[in-house]
Amino acid sequence: MPSLDMLLEEIVTANRILAHEGVVDSFGHVSARHPDNPKRFLLSRARAPERIEKDDIMEFTLEGDPVDARGRAPYLERFIHGGLYEARPDVHSVVHNHSPSVIPFGITERKLKPLLHMCANIGHEVPTWDSHDKFGDTALLVESVDMGRDLALAIGSGPSILMRGHGATVAASNARHAVFISIYLEVNAKLQMQAMALGDIKFLTPGEADKVISRTGPYTLNRAWENWCRRAGRPYQAELA
Amino acid sequence: MPSLDMLLEEIVTANRILAHEGVVDSFGHVSARHPDNPKRFLLSRARAPERIEKDDIMEFTLEGDPVDARGRAPYLERFIHGGLYEARPDVHSVVHNHSPSVIPFGITERKLKPLLHMCANIGHEVPTWDSHDKFGDTALLVESVDMGRDLALAIGSGPSILMRGHGATVAASNARHAVFISIYLEVNAKLQMQAMALGDIKFLTPGEADKVISRTGPYTLNRAWENWCRRAGRPYQAELA
Amino acid sequence: MPSLDMLLEEIVTANRILAHEGVVDSFGHVSARHPDNPKRFLLSRARAPERIEKDDIMEFTLEGDPVDARGRAPYLERFIHGGLYEARPDVHSVVHNHSPSVIPFGITERKLKPLLHMCANIGHEVPTWDSHDKFGDTALLVESVDMGRDLALAIGSGPSILMRGHGATVAASNARHAVFISIYLEVNAKLQMQAMALGDIKFLTPGEADKVISRTGPYTLNRAWENWCRRAGRPYQAELA
Amino acid sequence: MPSLDMLLEEIVTANRILAHEGVVDSFGHVSARHPDNPKRFLLSRARAPERIEKDDIMEFTLEGDPVDARGRAPYLERFIHGGLYEARPDVHSVVHNHSPSVIPFGITERKLKPLLHMCANIGHEVPTWDSHDKFGDTALLVESVDMGRDLALAIGSGPSILMRGHGATVAASNARHAVFISIYLEVNAKLQMQAMALGDIKFLTPGEADKVISRTGPYTLNRAWENWCRRAGRPYQAELA
Repeated sequence: MPSLDMLLEEIVTANRILAHEGVVDSFGHVSARHPDNPKRFLLSRARAPERIEKDDIMEFTLEGDPVDARGRAPYLERFIHGGLYEARPDVHSVVHNHSPSVIPFGITERKLKPLLHMCANIGHEVPTWDSHDKFGDTALLVESVDMGRDLALAIGSGPSILMRGHGATVAASNARHAVFISIYLEVNAKLQMQAMALGDIKFLTPGEADKVISRTGPYTLNRAWENWCRRAGRPYQAELA
Repeated sequence: MPSLDMLLEEIVTANRILAHEGVVDSFGHVSARHPDNPKRFLLSRARAPERIEKDDIMEFTLEGDPVDARGRAPYLERFIHGGLYEARPDVHSVVHNHSPSVIPFGITERKLKPLLHMCANIGHEVPTWDSHDKFGDTALLVESVDMGRDLALAIGSGPSILMRGHGATVAASNARHAVFISIYLEVNAKLQMQAMALGDIKFLTPGEADKVISRTGPYTLNRAWENWCRRAGRPYQAELA
Repeated sequence: MPSLDMLLEEIVTANRILAHEGVVDSFGHVSARHPDNPKRFLLSRARAPERIEKDDIMEFTLEGDPVDARGRAPYLERFIHGGLYEARPDVHSVVHNHSPSVIPFGITERKLKPLLHMCANIGHEVPTWDSHDKFGDTALLVESVDMGRDLALAIGSGPSILMRGHGATVAASNARHAVFISIYLEVNAKLQMQAMALGDIKFLTPGEADKVISRTGPYTLNRAWENWCRRAGRPYQAELA
Repeated sequence: MPSLDMLLEEIVTANRILAHEGVVDSFGHVSARHPDNPKRFLLSRARAPERIEKDDIMEFTLEGDPVDARGRAPYLERFIHGGLYEARPDVHSVVHNHSPSVIPFGITERKLKPLLHMCANIGHEVPTWDSHDKFGDTALLVESVDMGRDLALAIGSGPSILMRGHGATVAASNARHAVFISIYLEVNAKLQMQAMALGDIKFLTPGEADKVISRTGPYTLNRAWENWCRRAGRPYQAELA
């Protein structure tokens, strides 16, 4: 388990990377489960990911209540994170974004599926959650515990989900993996739109996807993480002590 | 009401942001209604948005006459702004641009409609104004009070309009909102072109769009504005005093 | 007429702008007719446009012979420039590029036509020259006086031409106009590819295009030029003395 | 033959260029045959191309065994390089990448063929290797001598090959040529996707492609190399002594 202090730095870095790599714009967020208390999670105050600093990171209960707000306004959609940490003990980091290339898949019938080995970790097929099904006309924001739980139900045990007219959410066992999946979810979506225009696609076989997933560990994640840190102007720490 | 001085800085910032985010190139402009005189508006001299400084901002009557030109050459299309301020007391800021992804919608039959919650503020469906309908063969520029009034008539009470073979115009109650709509109009157009290639699109329902619009205030606008300011190398002022 | 010294700086700037705006990559070039001798033109030695400095600019006869090479290797395709200056007394600057979005139009039957007022200066319809028609299997380079003359014949009195499997060439009365046309030729091509996927396009009418062309002068060109200079890190001189 | 020291710098530069030009992201690699021992090749330790420094370059046997690892972890896919150096005495540099625009061609039936003179060096038609044909469900990585040899068999005497669901590999007589082909393979793929949407494509004739290939030497390669070096922040050395 990383120390709280190192994890706070990791969350800042994750936000900056997602912004620098074009997966979030002024909106979107990334959280981590508290390293010392699995009933709490860490998430920035309402601020653009590219601007976030360590003091912006707040602590929340799984119901989305700030533990010590100190005047900081939280994201409305913190319930995405709480819902997933509540439902999924295996999840220690969550990314929510409006990653541009995934949007078209959330609003049409076409299914997003891995077509490149780097993208196998998005899951065999990415499901779509439509808030309208259960909640009707809303501002499409996940702004209550109920909505967060419904989204968590829809993602099931998978790593990623699309949200109709809204974006995507990724859940993983640590922040580096969550960021990695988020970036390659965007890559896969862009490539799939292009490949669909060329003809029938030979996607990864389920066996291939599973082989790649079983192989994805620090050897792979840290190579990307070091590079993304430097590109985003953040220090790289090889190991989370 | 912001002070004149702060509003001048706001206009400079708005220009720089639109340039940095790729919504304007060397052309396009953004204005604000004068804070002390609703019959006047503020707009830069004829200069690329990325280069504009405070001394470039001129004052105009609603008919587009410069109040104190001091040798500065105005934009030919200042009548876009005058026309809208004259027709719409609710409007305090106007953006005109040639935002790349919106052009294809202005020259084909396809209608631009919101498909992402961030884009609901573009309106339920963006109308198109074709200068040729009333004015015939022109250089497509809005270069007279008549043309500005005709454009204002076409936009009606809406927030945005496309101009055939030319670009788009956005009208809002303040500069931050006008910039926000302009940026997400580009986002929506790009996404809609991509999604149309995948199949039938599930757009936002009218009820969803209205919910999002009713929610869009400083909490949302300032998060983006802070980020865009920093990206464009401009200071961020939380409140317009 | 600008002085030779100022024109040399202008050519350097034109090269840097075209590279910065993505119209040329490591290849492509821009020339100007000699201000004191209409039988000569000025063109860099064989070097990437982004790297060119004043001492790289060489003087050539219209047949492409270097006047004082001083060990500098010329571009193989200097005959593009010589051919145009020979055939067209009205032409004082020529750009040759492999601008990405124009390539698809040079290798298919679709015609590139202006759809945006900013792009009217590309001409009513851009013709395509196929070196294979007259010269058979070549390396597609314009590497002789004969080929340069054939290309000049194909462009006729127009401002731009596509070259099959190769790129485009633009001819104008000065470097600012040639750069302007080159940049908006790329813009038009990209937009036309996108708009074609949406349905039938309402292009500019011939009358509209002519109105825009007749209006394009220093008021328009210099606004863009100032901006492009600054973006490319080059000083801006308002007037060519 | 370049000295070992200069070649190590050349490999660093090649990695940085490929990253800067968007042909590799955090993954992908470039190697060179050892200048003094044709049975050895030089390749970085497992690190993102944008980060590689001289001390990262390791020496390998053609079977992929590190000669003096000194604790440095090698790329899993070093067998791509060993396989090609073993099979092809003419090859002195190999690039492996996940270049974005080539992926769609590796997973559909559409063939990648040169349509622009700059791209003739990719070969008359780029073949595709599918690891599944012989090795079944794998993580798609070339992680054994057997797989490397199978890939080398598939590329035959050609300069480039696509790898289904994975990326591409380029083989050339020196690093500058391998980088050049890799960059223009990406360019060709992107242009071909766009042109296919416009209609039937007039590709280069075989005779044209051969003419271009026979012409591609230092005059062409170094013009691009100088530019790419400066863009990537690396010194340019005109000749490899």
